[in-house]
Amino acid sequence: MDFRDAVSSMNNKKIRYLLCGFALSASVAMAQDGTPTPDSTSAAQSRQVILIIGDGMDEQQITIARNYLKGAAGKLQLDQLPVRSSMQILTTEDQPDGKSVYVADSANTATSMATGVITSRGRISTSPGNNEDLTTLVELASAHGLRTGIVTTASITDATPAAFATHVNLRLCENPDAMIDISYRGIPLGNCSDDLKANGGKGSIAEQLADSSLDVMLGGGAKHFLPNAEGTTESVISLARHNGFQVVTTAAELAAASPYKRLLGLFAPSTLPVRLQGENGREAEEPKRSWLNHIHPYLGSVTQPEPMSCEPNPAFAAVPDLQQMTEAALRHLSHNNDAGFFLMVESASIDKQSHERKPCGSIGEVQQLEETLTSALAFAETHPRTLILVTADHSQAAQLIPYVSLFDAFPIPTSTPGMVARVITPEGSHMSINYATSNFMMEEHTGASVPLFSNSEGLDLVGPFVQQPQIFEIVRDYLGL
Amino acid sequence: MDFRDAVSSMNNKKIRYLLCGFALSASVAMAQDGTPTPDSTSAAQSRQVILIIGDGMDEQQITIARNYLKGAAGKLQLDQLPVRSSMQILTTEDQPDGKSVYVADSANTATSMATGVITSRGRISTSPGNNEDLTTLVELASAHGLRTGIVTTASITDATPAAFATHVNLRLCENPDAMIDISYRGIPLGNCSDDLKANGGKGSIAEQLADSSLDVMLGGGAKHFLPNAEGTTESVISLARHNGFQVVTTAAELAAASPYKRLLGLFAPSTLPVRLQGENGREAEEPKRSWLNHIHPYLGSVTQPEPMSCEPNPAFAAVPDLQQMTEAALRHLSHNNDAGFFLMVESASIDKQSHERKPCGSIGEVQQLEETLTSALAFAETHPRTLILVTADHSQAAQLIPYVSLFDAFPIPTSTPGMVARVITPEGSHMSINYATSNFMMEEHTGASVPLFSNSEGLDLVGPFVQQPQIFEIVRDYLGL
Repeated sequence: MDFRDAVSSMNNKKIRYLLCGFALSASVAMAQDGTPTPDSTSAAQSRQVILIIGDGMDEQQITIARNYLKGAAGKLQLDQLPVRSSMQILTTEDQPDGKSVYVADSANTATSMATGVITSRGRISTSPGNNEDLTTLVELASAHGLRTGIVTTASITDATPAAFATHVNLRLCENPDAMIDISYRGIPLGNCSDDLKANGGKGSIAEQLADSSLDVMLGGGAKHFLPNAEGTTESVISLARHNGFQVVTTAAELAAASPYKRLLGLFAPSTLPVRLQGENGREAEEPKRSWLNHIHPYLGSVTQPEPMSCEPNPAFAAVPDLQQMTEAALRHLSHNNDAGFFLMVESASIDKQSHERKPCGSIGEVQQLEETLTSALAFAETHPRTLILVTADHSQAAQLIPYVSLFDAFPIPTSTPGMVARVITPEGSHMSINYATSNFMMEEHTGASVPLFSNSEGLDLVGPFVQQPQIFEIVRDYLGL
Repeated sequence: MDFRDAVSSMNNKKIRYLLCGFALSASVAMAQDGTPTPDSTSAAQSRQVILIIGDGMDEQQITIARNYLKGAAGKLQLDQLPVRSSMQILTTEDQPDGKSVYVADSANTATSMATGVITSRGRISTSPGNNEDLTTLVELASAHGLRTGIVTTASITDATPAAFATHVNLRLCENPDAMIDISYRGIPLGNCSDDLKANGGKGSIAEQLADSSLDVMLGGGAKHFLPNAEGTTESVISLARHNGFQVVTTAAELAAASPYKRLLGLFAPSTLPVRLQGENGREAEEPKRSWLNHIHPYLGSVTQPEPMSCEPNPAFAAVPDLQQMTEAALRHLSHNNDAGFFLMVESASIDKQSHERKPCGSIGEVQQLEETLTSALAFAETHPRTLILVTADHSQAAQLIPYVSLFDAFPIPTSTPGMVARVITPEGSHMSINYATSNFMMEEHTGASVPLFSNSEGLDLVGPFVQQPQIFEIVRDYLGL
């Protein structure tokens, strides 16, 4: 496909973007010192939304992270935001007018926020039962001439970012090789046959992202861009390049990216490495029961796992952190842009590390979210019409339980029946975190409502109790879409 | 002790109250139709605070109750309040300047709210380590001429109500016979020797309540008023009568209580019966594992407990409900009172039923809190300077987990390692609630921050993030104490 073919296959939005880039190149060339001179006046007049999602970041996760990062009496950046609300999570069976389902996953919750429609678990911006595409905030914003971006520490094809710009019936359909008879170790997990281009669909998530109107996509998931796009001999990454994306794969390349070209950053094959890990890679462990305790739980003894510290994860240094990616996205989206933008940023591994019973991992990812929020707030300082929303998509398994049991006076070896980690906090106390929703290799989500925060721009927009699909309405109305 | 002795042993507050009663009797006698004519004008000018505490009512408990009582997409009365904030729970070791403890109990959390001071678990309005009495909101309000009340579905000597008006080093010291070498089945659980009157203390919680300035005390705990007051041959209930309390023990007596005399209602020996219970008294149960599953958790099968409905608890009809008690308290506290009042109302068994792994029980007690809130809001309609605060004291063990596992596609018998109840909701769905903090006969509390709500009167008083001891400051400042 040559350049003209590529251009002719693009939608109007992409052409507008490229032309805009050419025009701006001319004006920037006028700057005396050779550096771009963004039009801060027009940027300050535009409206933009930064939606920050802490995947699985419920009140337990926030309290655990606060205790570790700031001390029990300390305050997170989140705690200092002027708006703090509660968000009701809604999920349905996989049929039109299905019954309520009380525990969600990241696919249906991201769909709620991205489209305003309640769907079933596993679905990416498609309707329950009949698999109709639901218009997303990214599509709406692009259609109105706003720039759009997604940033995540997961694969950019993972459920949360995917739901803002793509449509498939199953979140696992992340690339062209994962559309039919998806399985894990021979276990069938579903398929997206209806979404194949051959069947009139839009293809896998990676292909839809490559074909999307997004201006910025940053995260992990490079492996999903390696297979050939359906019915072609061209890889998905090549398709993305043809569609006008510059592709970066390191922090240095990200920092040097051109502001005049759409930006696709893929910094790891799958999920990005997390910042913190348990001492020597430890996670929550099973308390060790004596033989007598196996006979009766009130007999014998139970040995709790040794307390542990959190330590830096060496692999983390190899990738840009969430704050760096977010700042790059903000530069890119705001550069010479008087039309505003919508940016979704996800700290994905609060959830993923909780599934794996790794409290240090989750804590570090809340810290990444906090730093990202700092950058978002700094951006809003110079761009006053910036609505920042911070929320979680659903609750998660971790529970902060007593380090010394409430029933310690009883001479009985009490213990959680699940796994537990006993984390030494920087303020010198001990924090016990248990995981006991499932005996599977992964913990389950939980169903509690989650916090929703906003900067002052949200004071009149975010009520004390919000249903998750209202996020779509709040963003749409704020941006005038 | 004759009447004059009783009066001479009272503090000034009690005398003022009695004299006020006499004076008001005279004025009420003037009413033409023979019924009392409360001075609504002066009452409307007074300031009052109704602090409603849902013990253990965290976001999980609220969501579980909402799903059952209103449906997943429904709204509780709580959800419609104009202020919803998050409250940080703070606990310390039992020594001055002790380290942080990350999971609280109802004694230290009620102390935080009642006195503004952070203390250690088990303490009732006494300081950590050195057992100094901490001035409570009830004491402050009484000293300023306001009326005060406590209403609870627990014993009125239980930790939460006790901390608003009494001072002991251990919450278990509820009556004169439970001050030295307290034990349960021979297991020593502590003592309150320093709080004995003989040692210069104020005696047990029941004795301190009988000696207190409270105008209204309603709840359970009659058994704690039966022993003789320390060093006397007079029961604590008799001491309360001598101190000017009328004593009622049934809903009928409560309804007929004189508005001119302090009111002590004791409607059960201990905790009041709860409204709802599991079908046939069922609670969360252990999933049944096949013999093969005992060999390896991925083999064989696990049979989940049968789904169950919630049903009325027959014993509940024998006692006044929380709404009736609260309405009686509001009548009593507001009757011919232009000085305002402070009322603490506790729905105690959200927590207690969660300790016992009874989700239906907890749901019914959130329902009781909701009804009480309705009455409080109605009162505030006619008494505009009424600040209503609703909160929890700490988080609890219940978790809303998926009814169908997120990993259902895997042919593996996944299950919680703890106990689980699968509740059929009125909207026809199934809700799985697990309890897995402890293998003891009681579940543990958890450490997450809890919700804090307010009516419109709190709009400028309750920020988005509040530390638990700030409740004391908010109430004190609102009432001008």
